[in-house]
Amino acid sequence: MKKQHISDAVIRRLPRYYRYLDELHSRGIVRISSSMLGKRMGITASQIRQDLSCFGEFGQQGYGYNIMELRAEIGHILGVDEQNRLIIIGAGHLGHALLQNFDFAQAGFRLDTAFDVSEALIGTEVNGVAIRSMDELDGYCAAVRPAVAVLTVPKSAAQEIADRLAALGVSGLWNFTNVELSVAEHVFVENVHFADSLLTLSYRISKKSEAENES
Amino acid sequence: MKKQHISDAVIRRLPRYYRYLDELHSRGIVRISSSMLGKRMGITASQIRQDLSCFGEFGQQGYGYNIMELRAEIGHILGVDEQNRLIIIGAGHLGHALLQNFDFAQAGFRLDTAFDVSEALIGTEVNGVAIRSMDELDGYCAAVRPAVAVLTVPKSAAQEIADRLAALGVSGLWNFTNVELSVAEHVFVENVHFADSLLTLSYRISKKSEAENES
Repeated sequence: MKKQHISDAVIRRLPRYYRYLDELHSRGIVRISSSMLGKRMGITASQIRQDLSCFGEFGQQGYGYNIMELRAEIGHILGVDEQNRLIIIGAGHLGHALLQNFDFAQAGFRLDTAFDVSEALIGTEVNGVAIRSMDELDGYCAAVRPAVAVLTVPKSAAQEIADRLAALGVSGLWNFTNVELSVAEHVFVENVHFADSLLTLSYRISKKSEAENES
Repeated sequence: MKKQHISDAVIRRLPRYYRYLDELHSRGIVRISSSMLGKRMGITASQIRQDLSCFGEFGQQGYGYNIMELRAEIGHILGVDEQNRLIIIGAGHLGHALLQNFDFAQAGFRLDTAFDVSEALIGTEVNGVAIRSMDELDGYCAAVRPAVAVLTVPKSAAQEIADRLAALGVSGLWNFTNVELSVAEHVFVENVHFADSLLTLSYRISKKSEAENES
């Protein structure tokens, strides 16, 4: 594999490729050209070829991509075959929603367990996953070494728990708390900012109604 | 305001500016230079100046930006002062989490009500918001004309409900269902793809462990 700096924009497109290829694969489609794939995704064929060239050689001139192969290759690049261990911190409504509905295995993670401070939740199971006391977190991390922790805790607790997880050797935080965390350099933080997404929608709607009012 | 095509990348940075300015404002900071703001956000000062120049003239050479003013201007561009009406379709765990924790007013929306098919939920309130029957949806939309619907329904129901909402005149769908919706052109769809975000984190972790194994 070539050694080069890969831009954030390219990295963020990889999961989209993976998702589209997955959908095509599940519909029984065997191959697709870069122009057809681009059309579906709203990007150009040359963008796709350029993105993929960062990681090696894929597809064949005049034949296109074998969907199953390309999906497996991109999955490999994304690390989905590593089955890293993942824990959830905070089993409130959002933690619950993820426990019930999100397919962690499909994203390449093995969901081990969840932690909470609520006595009502500790000792229960959600979708087959045990909810443990936060008091057990340190021992658990020392024994199991989870790679990623999902943060679905209240804002007020977010930074303190992030520090604790970083000290416990977690490599990544999937952060739903809407707090900009400062963590040690060895920890990657991936934020899900709901508000950014809704504000983007707000922008598009407001520009549309502006345009209608002007016409 | 200048008329020009504004790229998706610029539009997606606006909510980030808004969020950072909000945080600075809440800390009592009055002004900031583009280079300091860029440093915090991990982008260049010239990127910020270029982005903002799409929308008008902001800041003053050698003085920087007045945080409260710039925040208000960007908020205005994003449409947060329009207080558009919003409804939630699906009051399961995720819908519940949004009802409980998400500040719709801060994002410029007025959360009216939520709809569900569950008899156990219909007629109840979550955080002061009434849960209504899906049977009331058509009448409600005709009377109130909500601009945006949040889709927190099961995958299997997503497309059908999206079509129904489009026919009822909704302008935007905030889609948490992980289904790629096809809707009429007048409807904007903003997707929250949890998996894309987690896969990005997976990529970074797997590249890191690769680098460690090689060194």
